[in-house]
Amino acid sequence: MILTVTCNPAIDVTYRVDSLVPGEMHRVREVTERAGGKGVNVARVLHLLGERTMATGLADVGFADAVELLGVPAAFLTALPSMRRTLAVHADGLTTSLWEPGAVVEEPADVALKLERHVQLLLTGADGLVVSGSLPPGFAPDLPTRLAELAIDEDVPVVLDLDDEPLRVAADGGAAVLMPNLDELARLVGADGDLDVVAAASELSGRSRAPVVATLGIDGMVAATKDGSWHAVAEQVAGNPTGAGDAAAAAIIRGLVRGEPWPEVLADAVALSAAAVVAPVAGEVDLDAYQRWRGTIEVRPIDSLIVQKVPR
Amino acid sequence: MILTVTCNPAIDVTYRVDSLVPGEMHRVREVTERAGGKGVNVARVLHLLGERTMATGLADVGFADAVELLGVPAAFLTALPSMRRTLAVHADGLTTSLWEPGAVVEEPADVALKLERHVQLLLTGADGLVVSGSLPPGFAPDLPTRLAELAIDEDVPVVLDLDDEPLRVAADGGAAVLMPNLDELARLVGADGDLDVVAAASELSGRSRAPVVATLGIDGMVAATKDGSWHAVAEQVAGNPTGAGDAAAAAIIRGLVRGEPWPEVLADAVALSAAAVVAPVAGEVDLDAYQRWRGTIEVRPIDSLIVQKVPR
Repeated sequence: MILTVTCNPAIDVTYRVDSLVPGEMHRVREVTERAGGKGVNVARVLHLLGERTMATGLADVGFADAVELLGVPAAFLTALPSMRRTLAVHADGLTTSLWEPGAVVEEPADVALKLERHVQLLLTGADGLVVSGSLPPGFAPDLPTRLAELAIDEDVPVVLDLDDEPLRVAADGGAAVLMPNLDELARLVGADGDLDVVAAASELSGRSRAPVVATLGIDGMVAATKDGSWHAVAEQVAGNPTGAGDAAAAAIIRGLVRGEPWPEVLADAVALSAAAVVAPVAGEVDLDAYQRWRGTIEVRPIDSLIVQKVPR
Repeated sequence: MILTVTCNPAIDVTYRVDSLVPGEMHRVREVTERAGGKGVNVARVLHLLGERTMATGLADVGFADAVELLGVPAAFLTALPSMRRTLAVHADGLTTSLWEPGAVVEEPADVALKLERHVQLLLTGADGLVVSGSLPPGFAPDLPTRLAELAIDEDVPVVLDLDDEPLRVAADGGAAVLMPNLDELARLVGADGDLDVVAAASELSGRSRAPVVATLGIDGMVAATKDGSWHAVAEQVAGNPTGAGDAAAAAIIRGLVRGEPWPEVLADAVALSAAAVVAPVAGEVDLDAYQRWRGTIEVRPIDSLIVQKVPR
């Protein structure tokens, strides 16, 4: 079983309106809601792939039911007073997103300890662990790294899909696979201007003592490991990039659990990620597209990949 | 006690974002939530004015608690599976609104009957009734008129603040004060092009056998009654017009309950409405501004008021 942890999950709400005009009043034609959050999406993709999985993390009293509507067994710690919402407004072929911050918890340090104990217990049945996404306000940024250490102590492979401060802590922690995007990678190695993604990912991999998968959007992904570095890219597809990273995380943890070689893992991550882009909703993948693309992804060893970083 | 009925209430959610750009992802800086819906706002304004009031209508199991946080006693019929949300996104000095449709109820006709019995019981303690706002999907448009008739049978004065089909039914029903805006009034009398608001409101008042207050935005309000017609307008103020009509409804029902003459009622409605515009949130009024403006509103008898209707 692969355990996914989402510390700051959300209800994903979708509005359909005729067109979105700032300053105007809009009647919403259609409202849909589903359980969301990056780790929940990872578990949903694993479930679609036929893998045994379980979703945990922090939630309010009703959230687990919403997760189980997705077919994913859920064992959340009831610790949030309410769920934040991530709103996607569809109009005129554009998606406008509004992400609420997480609910404020009274004693974040106590809740973090409870979550550690909870995850420790769930890990007794787990072959892999994914910790994804942000933390609610007030939580110490080392929580994902501490959860990862619980798994690594048991020789359970871990993927951490984080950004900002939690990613920085994880980079200096140990032995979990990290998945920075280009901006995050540049920040972690202190680069500005052009970036050699391979050199940066390798440097980070040395620091974190684990493979690093740099996710580059339309430029594919680079895996940097102690045994070498590889690059893979899918044909460009149009669609919704939200959830592509979660599909990649699902492919990577599945590959690690199976002990597959990195070129295979990378090809799988790239194909599944593209299959998520063509699916309309985060947490869904087009399994037919995935099967079709899986064999076509070319993975090549790589020494250097210079990417011009957009100045921020 | 003045009873307000809201058949399709909402949770009013406010987001503050740095700027709203269609097609982009936005982190919401601040989220606030409060009980909303037109009748709830009316009750809140009456409460601020020191009047005894009670809010009822259709809601889910948790909504009454949210109404009572506003200081308003609540006695909602628990009949909705969830509350719709009305979202206001504040960015760059603009407010962008997204209004969800109401929750779908399995047996709207049964629920409507239950609400009639519920309102009938609450009316035993009521001196006035306001029924405001839209209906959830699937409800027959005569529900507000049927609720009004329950009160009128007991000689309790009624204000109906409706639009679309429920307003059309009420116009042919009887003896409740109606509050159409310019567009609604034009539709009700079948006018296009220039509209004589006084003639139209008088015609409507004859049909409904009750006074009509036409609300004209910056052009103030016209009251048409069997004893004459009056016009009043406030100095133009900048602010948030949402909730101005609810403040006017609060002033009108209070005046009717007290048996005040129509020129007084109209001046009060115009002043309180302006005091709602300068308050940032629907359901709130600036009581200092109201007191300041109350004595300055000029009410004049009027025979004709031609307003150029914007073609739709």
